[in-house]
Amino acid sequence: MNYYDKKSKITYALGLTVVIEALKRRIKEARKLYLSPSLKEGEGKREVLSLARSANIPVIQNNTKIFSLSEKEACYAILECEKREEDLSLLKSHILLVEPSNQGNVGTIMRAMASFSIHDLAIIIPAADVHSPKTIRSSMGAYFSLRISLFQDFSSYAKQFPNHHYYPFMLDADTSLSSLSFIKPSTLIFGNEARGLPSSYHDIGTSVRIEMEKEVDSLNLDNAASIALYHLYTKS
Amino acid sequence: MNYYDKKSKITYALGLTVVIEALKRRIKEARKLYLSPSLKEGEGKREVLSLARSANIPVIQNNTKIFSLSEKEACYAILECEKREEDLSLLKSHILLVEPSNQGNVGTIMRAMASFSIHDLAIIIPAADVHSPKTIRSSMGAYFSLRISLFQDFSSYAKQFPNHHYYPFMLDADTSLSSLSFIKPSTLIFGNEARGLPSSYHDIGTSVRIEMEKEVDSLNLDNAASIALYHLYTKS
Repeated sequence: MNYYDKKSKITYALGLTVVIEALKRRIKEARKLYLSPSLKEGEGKREVLSLARSANIPVIQNNTKIFSLSEKEACYAILECEKREEDLSLLKSHILLVEPSNQGNVGTIMRAMASFSIHDLAIIIPAADVHSPKTIRSSMGAYFSLRISLFQDFSSYAKQFPNHHYYPFMLDADTSLSSLSFIKPSTLIFGNEARGLPSSYHDIGTSVRIEMEKEVDSLNLDNAASIALYHLYTKS
Repeated sequence: MNYYDKKSKITYALGLTVVIEALKRRIKEARKLYLSPSLKEGEGKREVLSLARSANIPVIQNNTKIFSLSEKEACYAILECEKREEDLSLLKSHILLVEPSNQGNVGTIMRAMASFSIHDLAIIIPAADVHSPKTIRSSMGAYFSLRISLFQDFSSYAKQFPNHHYYPFMLDADTSLSSLSFIKPSTLIFGNEARGLPSSYHDIGTSVRIEMEKEVDSLNLDNAASIALYHLYTKS
């Protein structure tokens, strides 16, 4: 098996920074470490080797796997690891993404979540593959610091988290973000990149609008999520 | 000439939404409109044709150009247009990007600028090509609503805009964004994706820190810029 398979239980962390993050946070799920013979001696190599050896993870110094997975960029380290989904916290705030379609966006949102100390990510499917090497790389390794859980629809999410305060982000919502104080635990809800949230989300909790110029279509999904996360981090 | 050339004075708007934006905002720079014969009749096609015809822009219904430029996605409309750089406003707030390296990031920042009503973009070179079809597409057409100007270094920018208040965004700045009221006209300054701003920027104006968890490397460049732009839009 040379390439990543969405259906497999295995995924890959690509790149030294991401691999170190994975080994620090999720050493139990790590299976094999591939290092390129071109990786220079230095702090990064010492750190990754010491982490792997302390957990008896096999180290393979070999370029074959490295090249078959990392098509575009130079990549000197790859970690093979198990995908993990787990129950989200009942007490902490969540991000809920409804049918996101772009792996890069989902990864960038994971990175912003880690920056603003939100560690629970719910996804309503169908959605971009949250476990793919591309998503993990876009997250800069933040993937490994999150609890991630997939749901069939909003009602299955709501059944599990009835005490969360729901904040669907919608262009035509009444409440503006800057006037809002989130009640915790909060669930910040964002729709698909192209379609946004269905209008039925108006009836769920408090819908929120990020103030912006009317002539403009809308913000990029991960930009909108970052603005909301920063607000949650600093204003509540 | 089938492909985009960075050195040429010509660039391309790809996709119906972006083409309409270009025709609405910069009809004088438009040269030729290419439409795919597969573009279905409808509101979009009627709008683009009516805009082009009102300005006597030649319309070519042909798939050749369409396919040579848009490699990945289906694309039904392409506008050939002139690149434009122009002086920035002396009175309005600016974004200044110092050596940004990623076209997608620059385009996404353009989109966020339009959302938050900032229309002046300064770039210190070397930098990603701000006029490329990829940048323009990432901007969702916001490229056409901006004034864009390139500078060799910060001092040439500062010489031209001595009355702007400079706000370099740096991880180790003293002033936190949420405590700040921008004085206008402001210049919000962001560094390269990997390196950030050189420490010499600490001595320029008021350096600003976006509050976040310390263990995390930093935010994505366009996420950081969006958070700052939203703050400028709502808090000053």
